[in-house]
Amino acid sequence: MTSKIDPAAALAAVRERHPLVHNITNYVVMNVTANALLAVGAAPVMAHAAEEVEEMVGIAGALVLNIGTLSPPWIEAMFRAGRAARARGVPIVLDPVGAGATRLRTETARRLLEELRPTIVRGNASEILALTGGDFRARGVDSAHPVEMARAAAAEIARRLGVTVAVTGAVDYVTDGRRAARVANGHPLMGRITGSGCTASALTGAFAAAAEDAFAAATVALIVFGVCGERAAAGAPGPGAFQTRLLDELAGVTPAEVAAAARCEVEAL
Amino acid sequence: MTSKIDPAAALAAVRERHPLVHNITNYVVMNVTANALLAVGAAPVMAHAAEEVEEMVGIAGALVLNIGTLSPPWIEAMFRAGRAARARGVPIVLDPVGAGATRLRTETARRLLEELRPTIVRGNASEILALTGGDFRARGVDSAHPVEMARAAAAEIARRLGVTVAVTGAVDYVTDGRRAARVANGHPLMGRITGSGCTASALTGAFAAAAEDAFAAATVALIVFGVCGERAAAGAPGPGAFQTRLLDELAGVTPAEVAAAARCEVEAL
Amino acid sequence: MTSKIDPAAALAAVRERHPLVHNITNYVVMNVTANALLAVGAAPVMAHAAEEVEEMVGIAGALVLNIGTLSPPWIEAMFRAGRAARARGVPIVLDPVGAGATRLRTETARRLLEELRPTIVRGNASEILALTGGDFRARGVDSAHPVEMARAAAAEIARRLGVTVAVTGAVDYVTDGRRAARVANGHPLMGRITGSGCTASALTGAFAAAAEDAFAAATVALIVFGVCGERAAAGAPGPGAFQTRLLDELAGVTPAEVAAAARCEVEAL
Repeated sequence: MTSKIDPAAALAAVRERHPLVHNITNYVVMNVTANALLAVGAAPVMAHAAEEVEEMVGIAGALVLNIGTLSPPWIEAMFRAGRAARARGVPIVLDPVGAGATRLRTETARRLLEELRPTIVRGNASEILALTGGDFRARGVDSAHPVEMARAAAAEIARRLGVTVAVTGAVDYVTDGRRAARVANGHPLMGRITGSGCTASALTGAFAAAAEDAFAAATVALIVFGVCGERAAAGAPGPGAFQTRLLDELAGVTPAEVAAAARCEVEAL
Repeated sequence: MTSKIDPAAALAAVRERHPLVHNITNYVVMNVTANALLAVGAAPVMAHAAEEVEEMVGIAGALVLNIGTLSPPWIEAMFRAGRAARARGVPIVLDPVGAGATRLRTETARRLLEELRPTIVRGNASEILALTGGDFRARGVDSAHPVEMARAAAAEIARRLGVTVAVTGAVDYVTDGRRAARVANGHPLMGRITGSGCTASALTGAFAAAAEDAFAAATVALIVFGVCGERAAAGAPGPGAFQTRLLDELAGVTPAEVAAAARCEVEAL
Repeated sequence: MTSKIDPAAALAAVRERHPLVHNITNYVVMNVTANALLAVGAAPVMAHAAEEVEEMVGIAGALVLNIGTLSPPWIEAMFRAGRAARARGVPIVLDPVGAGATRLRTETARRLLEELRPTIVRGNASEILALTGGDFRARGVDSAHPVEMARAAAAEIARRLGVTVAVTGAVDYVTDGRRAARVANGHPLMGRITGSGCTASALTGAFAAAAEDAFAAATVALIVFGVCGERAAAGAPGPGAFQTRLLDELAGVTPAEVAAAARCEVEAL
């Protein structure tokens, strides 16, 4: 499979198809991720009741599972929705928010990963490392650099489970185990508002719903989000204005502007 | 009963009386609807525990029930609060978010409608149609146009249950079964932020708390919201700035400005 | 103990140490309080599951308990987290949102106060009065002025339980029973956005995590927040723009600017 990373075409596809993205996500970011999805051209729906998630995912183009404010009924709903999504071929994006911070988060994230085999996993370096079970270092990765370790972990997870893994940070890293993309778009202000990572995951859901190739979907989502972050940051006096401008950019940036600003390199592993 | 649609007087009344609006609403919009209520001059409270909703509604001027992120404990709380509101003469606004999308939502919305007979129901065309039980087409409405069908359904619901029904869209339609108002205010950017419909419902609660006539309250709420949407959209570069300006307009628009910009026609049915 | 109220040094300390603040708070304000904490330089985490709160508070610099959208599982989580915080010496901030409005809120707030003896309690006048059990008037405070009554109640609670109590309003009042600070910073627009009080409590958590003296922490938090409110309000056309600017100010105000704008008087009681 060749890697076709075409953020302009992908953005145009999202805006044309308006994919419905079903989110089972955390309370903190529900509003901002819904607005980001609307801005980019997708249609968000939030639904978490065990009684309705299977039905809801059946009309969705993608399912986003985010464990940021976890509790047992929500975990059950994530598994129900995830199994229904798998059965129907609906792509799943997993955001393991806070994996590594508590056992509940680490174990839930690992179970969701192993049992659902989501299409795409997106987390920061420490979250991705936490997915590997702690025995990762023992397997011979000789690095004190957590970002490098997380990237190696991502490739291992990708190969073992057949999923795409994105490790976001100053430079985002996306891999399906055979290919790796490095996305150098973005801005430090993205780390000064809550829910930047969660928004990246939600947008990844929109692009996964509108594309065939998970590796390309995850990569273009991070390019589009990073470019919009750069554009929103230009002249923003602080995180409040930045957050407002970010929605404006997600709605207003053109495919050609994204393509021109993209800083992405792809390599075979 | 004659229809007295006076948005200027109604807005002045809300700002003078600061009605307390008790919301049992969805997680996505809690913050924005609370801010919209504060901006327009009302006082919001969110409370959903079965242990306190009856007490809370007893000090409120209106109750808003919104099923956007439903789960069984919240459904129970909605019925408890709704029965207490009815017993005390507190107006109820029902927002059947997503009715038609899942059985849980459709059935809960219908049960809330039939058992509580809320003062006002506000939804989009597909949500209002979903309230009619699917046998609406069979009853002789011969139209392929969903907006026209939803308006006919609204009039039927209004007559059968003695409630006011608002079908919002490019042109909003409000009916109590005897009268119908068409409100042509609003702007497409309102559909590009999450919670516009939910905000319309919350504001309807504020106006219902400050007015006698439910038909007039629902109509003026949609006029005020629509006028503020138009004003906020003027010059807004995108949905982020629009959302910010919408709160500024709800707080700053004068009754005279609303009256001058209102585009509303009322007819007898 | 002398009172050392140094908002500039305190703000610098928060920005240098980036304390992790664990919030068990209400749905309405989760996003805005997380953003305010990030803006001021702290690191927010929201976690409410009984299964993880003890572990989460173990890595936190402060715990903020806010009862704004209470339900029984959340109450249990607050007690679990609070006991773990006490055992580990993690400062606790209690925000008794809506105490006095319903029995559930009043009783829960009192139990949290009496059983956890939080480091700092922050509420408005009626909430603080509601904590005193209603028999406060009987104990000889002869005043019809609710603010004066609330301040007297705050001093009583502070002395009896060894906690610091902040009564916020047009002039904020902070007392540990031996000292009292009056903070005259702030702006009326802070009352026109939802979650201002909750944000004050969250910021108090950040300052408590970075300081030794609870009285000083509560006082400087209110100074910083009030100064930022004043700066954000300057030229803001309404509450929407104000809310955006408030985050920009929390992120951008310098310690020297805070010190120059602080209006605070401290007295021995």
